[in-house]
Amino acid sequence: MTDTAQAPLVGIVMGSRSDWETMQHAAAKLEVLGVPHEVRVVSAHRTPDVLFDYAASAAGRGLRAIIAGAGGAAHLPGMLAAKTAVPVLGVPVQSKALNGMDSLLSIVQMPAGIPVATFAIGNAGAANAALFAAAMLAAEHPAIGGALNAFRTRQTEDVAGNDDPRK
Amino acid sequence: MTDTAQAPLVGIVMGSRSDWETMQHAAAKLEVLGVPHEVRVVSAHRTPDVLFDYAASAAGRGLRAIIAGAGGAAHLPGMLAAKTAVPVLGVPVQSKALNGMDSLLSIVQMPAGIPVATFAIGNAGAANAALFAAAMLAAEHPAIGGALNAFRTRQTEDVAGNDDPRK
Amino acid sequence: MTDTAQAPLVGIVMGSRSDWETMQHAAAKLEVLGVPHEVRVVSAHRTPDVLFDYAASAAGRGLRAIIAGAGGAAHLPGMLAAKTAVPVLGVPVQSKALNGMDSLLSIVQMPAGIPVATFAIGNAGAANAALFAAAMLAAEHPAIGGALNAFRTRQTEDVAGNDDPRK
Amino acid sequence: MTDTAQAPLVGIVMGSRSDWETMQHAAAKLEVLGVPHEVRVVSAHRTPDVLFDYAASAAGRGLRAIIAGAGGAAHLPGMLAAKTAVPVLGVPVQSKALNGMDSLLSIVQMPAGIPVATFAIGNAGAANAALFAAAMLAAEHPAIGGALNAFRTRQTEDVAGNDDPRK
Amino acid sequence: MTDTAQAPLVGIVMGSRSDWETMQHAAAKLEVLGVPHEVRVVSAHRTPDVLFDYAASAAGRGLRAIIAGAGGAAHLPGMLAAKTAVPVLGVPVQSKALNGMDSLLSIVQMPAGIPVATFAIGNAGAANAALFAAAMLAAEHPAIGGALNAFRTRQTEDVAGNDDPRK
Amino acid sequence: MTDTAQAPLVGIVMGSRSDWETMQHAAAKLEVLGVPHEVRVVSAHRTPDVLFDYAASAAGRGLRAIIAGAGGAAHLPGMLAAKTAVPVLGVPVQSKALNGMDSLLSIVQMPAGIPVATFAIGNAGAANAALFAAAMLAAEHPAIGGALNAFRTRQTEDVAGNDDPRK
Amino acid sequence: MTDTAQAPLVGIVMGSRSDWETMQHAAAKLEVLGVPHEVRVVSAHRTPDVLFDYAASAAGRGLRAIIAGAGGAAHLPGMLAAKTAVPVLGVPVQSKALNGMDSLLSIVQMPAGIPVATFAIGNAGAANAALFAAAMLAAEHPAIGGALNAFRTRQTEDVAGNDDPRK
Amino acid sequence: MTDTAQAPLVGIVMGSRSDWETMQHAAAKLEVLGVPHEVRVVSAHRTPDVLFDYAASAAGRGLRAIIAGAGGAAHLPGMLAAKTAVPVLGVPVQSKALNGMDSLLSIVQMPAGIPVATFAIGNAGAANAALFAAAMLAAEHPAIGGALNAFRTRQTEDVAGNDDPRK
Repeated sequence: MTDTAQAPLVGIVMGSRSDWETMQHAAAKLEVLGVPHEVRVVSAHRTPDVLFDYAASAAGRGLRAIIAGAGGAAHLPGMLAAKTAVPVLGVPVQSKALNGMDSLLSIVQMPAGIPVATFAIGNAGAANAALFAAAMLAAEHPAIGGALNAFRTRQTEDVAGNDDPRK
Repeated sequence: MTDTAQAPLVGIVMGSRSDWETMQHAAAKLEVLGVPHEVRVVSAHRTPDVLFDYAASAAGRGLRAIIAGAGGAAHLPGMLAAKTAVPVLGVPVQSKALNGMDSLLSIVQMPAGIPVATFAIGNAGAANAALFAAAMLAAEHPAIGGALNAFRTRQTEDVAGNDDPRK
Repeated sequence: MTDTAQAPLVGIVMGSRSDWETMQHAAAKLEVLGVPHEVRVVSAHRTPDVLFDYAASAAGRGLRAIIAGAGGAAHLPGMLAAKTAVPVLGVPVQSKALNGMDSLLSIVQMPAGIPVATFAIGNAGAANAALFAAAMLAAEHPAIGGALNAFRTRQTEDVAGNDDPRK
Repeated sequence: MTDTAQAPLVGIVMGSRSDWETMQHAAAKLEVLGVPHEVRVVSAHRTPDVLFDYAASAAGRGLRAIIAGAGGAAHLPGMLAAKTAVPVLGVPVQSKALNGMDSLLSIVQMPAGIPVATFAIGNAGAANAALFAAAMLAAEHPAIGGALNAFRTRQTEDVAGNDDPRK
Repeated sequence: MTDTAQAPLVGIVMGSRSDWETMQHAAAKLEVLGVPHEVRVVSAHRTPDVLFDYAASAAGRGLRAIIAGAGGAAHLPGMLAAKTAVPVLGVPVQSKALNGMDSLLSIVQMPAGIPVATFAIGNAGAANAALFAAAMLAAEHPAIGGALNAFRTRQTEDVAGNDDPRK
Repeated sequence: MTDTAQAPLVGIVMGSRSDWETMQHAAAKLEVLGVPHEVRVVSAHRTPDVLFDYAASAAGRGLRAIIAGAGGAAHLPGMLAAKTAVPVLGVPVQSKALNGMDSLLSIVQMPAGIPVATFAIGNAGAANAALFAAAMLAAEHPAIGGALNAFRTRQTEDVAGNDDPRK
Repeated sequence: MTDTAQAPLVGIVMGSRSDWETMQHAAAKLEVLGVPHEVRVVSAHRTPDVLFDYAASAAGRGLRAIIAGAGGAAHLPGMLAAKTAVPVLGVPVQSKALNGMDSLLSIVQMPAGIPVATFAIGNAGAANAALFAAAMLAAEHPAIGGALNAFRTRQTEDVAGNDDPRK
Repeated sequence: MTDTAQAPLVGIVMGSRSDWETMQHAAAKLEVLGVPHEVRVVSAHRTPDVLFDYAASAAGRGLRAIIAGAGGAAHLPGMLAAKTAVPVLGVPVQSKALNGMDSLLSIVQMPAGIPVATFAIGNAGAANAALFAAAMLAAEHPAIGGALNAFRTRQTEDVAGNDDPRK
């Protein structure tokens, strides 16, 4: 893992250990793109003080983005955003009964004043939050920008060079 | 208003001034039932520290229930419940685009461990949260219990004695 | 089970035997917190008279809260609340076709006048209804209050002390 | 009104006076078809005992169908059906926040064992419940059957003879 | 099967053979209650002429109710009702993608003028449609009425006599 | 109106006169593109025989497409498609309670075997059904193809040449 | 496969290889009906330039319809339609979290001006898009028209001749 | 307007002129925070080539973020993101029939590989996208960072200093 080698630029947090199954897709993408990051379980409901401390110290510790995944009545991304001006990227984790519709609405429907950038429900959202964080960092961190461009080019070539679904 | 006469037993809080249109129905019912209460705007997103202080001091100040109304990605009830063991009663305020379905799911779908008692979207929910708070207090506060019983009896009589809708 | 040792303070009722899979999570939490309780199957639709008797006798038997779980067109919590001023806590059981959205709306959308405190769909809701009932009892029953505080502290420590999801 | 002239065959009940705006469409259709009926406000939540008495006495009083309209967490049709074997026809009244989706699911999603015949949300549902009640009575009451056939024929002719929407 | 012994009073039809898994619960209940019935696959979309013939001949053949099950864009119940004044009871079959919400709305949201009595999505709805058909027939067919009452009494006793879910 | 000048190529039908407010947008677009068409009210539920006749005669009368608009439990498009191989284009009319979600699902969720091409809820869907019908006819009717291309070019230029929303 | 033998009249495209599981049902139906076609993976998001080229060259290459399947935020059908006047038939692929409701709304809710003919979510929609394409081609290609009629007749006979679901 | 004074850092685009009612809230916030920006109508469906050119030139022209608002089957944000690595912030515009639920799902449910940061439906989402863009720029543009902090502080004080909703 990258997260001890360098001061992390991105924090990945999630409301419970079980969210890791989803959020590992964010970590994997950051790994591929060479974005230093850290990973933590921080529960808005069970550890609210840790949440506040994490958010309050984020800018000072050099975090440039926080990717926050949570399910159900998902309050983690919005409360982080309430406590820091560091951009917060929210990932709705697919919930058991309502398939993540509750998670999505709890994250995306923030009132005017405190934004949370929201991504798709589940694994795709986790991966995309990481790609978005990399894009945010690309201007200042050319290596990350280069890795992101390489990823996108490769992704395009993979589809284009392999476009007969029957094979 | 009752809230200066006696130490409040119930706190009514809401995420924005515009929620008062809904939450006044909670205050009105507490007034009728003689439940000492206070009313505050506390925004989870815009004043998170006030929220934490409010919750942390609630038990010490003698609050026995907090009625919290919020709309959209409604985090106020859940975050209050995260910071205090005083029972939190959540009221989903009807939102503009999604009619309060976002508010409802953001409040009711709490993960195991931190409960929020949730009521109906809008005015009915606000009124019912107040009635529920009164019911919680009835055993210890016979006057409240008596007022609640009188209210329920009157309500039954109003329907029963007036049951021809064509008149 | 606690329910013969002491007069129960909380009644757990459910619309059918199959709801026990969900509602046992309420019973388990009450057990942990030392809240005397009883468990019954009471069907609003198949045994309406039993429902009315249960509700009508609840206060006299010393019940301080009723936790009612039901699925689909879930009428049990609302009809109990119609017949008693004892606080009713509703748990929407996850239904087969609509994943509990029908159960949730049938329970939470009560009209003004008769409140049902509603919790999340499924197991989390059942557990949280029990925690909420304990919080309601805490002021009068210090042992329950202590057990609840211990539970909450332990829960916080479990998350905080174990916050690397990769391990 | 027909309802004093003859012993009513159909009872129209509704949860609150405000439901009359919808339910009058049921009464109007029964009037047109010459079906003796009565109209009452009976609230499942505010007058549960009246509800039980109404249902328990329905068969004995000669009612052959009960049309029950309610909104939100609509328990009236299902609880009537729980207490009588007289066929219950449920009409979901359009609710303020959720447009009657809550009313619909609360009425239609009855568990196996106790049926409620459910019709569309709002005025169309009220009218159709009345037409359905007339169809149920048609075999035994030829005058009603004749009126129903005349209504259907007229309705078909109205559309067929007037089929240019630009005029 | 009862359906050759006596002229059927109830027709059970369904849009495809795969709906039998659901609709057999209607047949089973009619069997138990001694209601003579017939069972057919009739597709609104693939055999529209059969549908029209079935509906047009229903009254003449002595059918007193038609129970029609269909899924997705379910047009079978509504089109039967368009072609006959015999009461049509619609059963929304649970669909693959949308869990029967499409089936339910396609059946229940009939415009004013042509009613379809709608029941719950899936097996419970099929069973309840049969119970409702029996209730419609009870006045004229005392044996069916007696069987229905016996069924309801047994059902109540089953719940009441077996109300500890832990056993 | 074009519809008497030439044998119509497209039929516009709708379930009730009130649907004309929506369906006129289909007629207006066909008018602009010079597509000969006719307009009729045909109700699946109130005039099922007219519907069958209309569909059965469509191919013989030279119709190359039928645009069918309906709301609620919208059966008109699907039943036309069941009775003719002429392509049917369905337009979900916005319904009162459910905003056209019921109309959309009733039209689009057709089972395999009988297709209905479905367009957006309301006016946009009506207009687009007409544009689609024109596109279907373009190869054989160069004048229509030319008019369609001119419309699309004009539409593009209107946006591109007027792209500052503040003016 | 037909697609090399003759210049294709229909193009089947899909947003990812995993959509083939659904879209093969379109290919299979075209195969049965003898409609020359081609199959390609074209991603709106990962290969937007390929999408534009595909659409821009479609008319010139003789395509008379494009069947486009995609899931989630499904932009493929709409963007093809934006770039070509060749009729586009959209198939919403069932998505993981939201069961294809997102796919359906992303495809069907096109603004006025650019139509996409939309079919049911999943396999039924894919099959029906193919049947619809064949119906569009039937007038000019009698062999396809004949095959389509034969298919529809066979389908009707299969249901009608096999209408006892218990066998 | 700021957008001629300085090379714009943020582009605000929208699918139609009518979206300006919503998107002006993004422009207003950027104005307050001193973020140079430009405003354009760019329709994914009616001007796809303009969309592609806009996206392809965005990085070269110095844009650091694109805020894209669209309603219904909203393809603008996702297609911009497909053509540029500049971060795209999507704003779901409230649609007529479905209240923006279609817009939201069409924007947020992007597949893995191409992210769109999504904000709330309507005005709040537009304002928050602007605040988020400012937060992204804050590290490199201290004046923007300062303005953002001032805005957040003022917002907090406005709530905290004015917390009695009855005044």
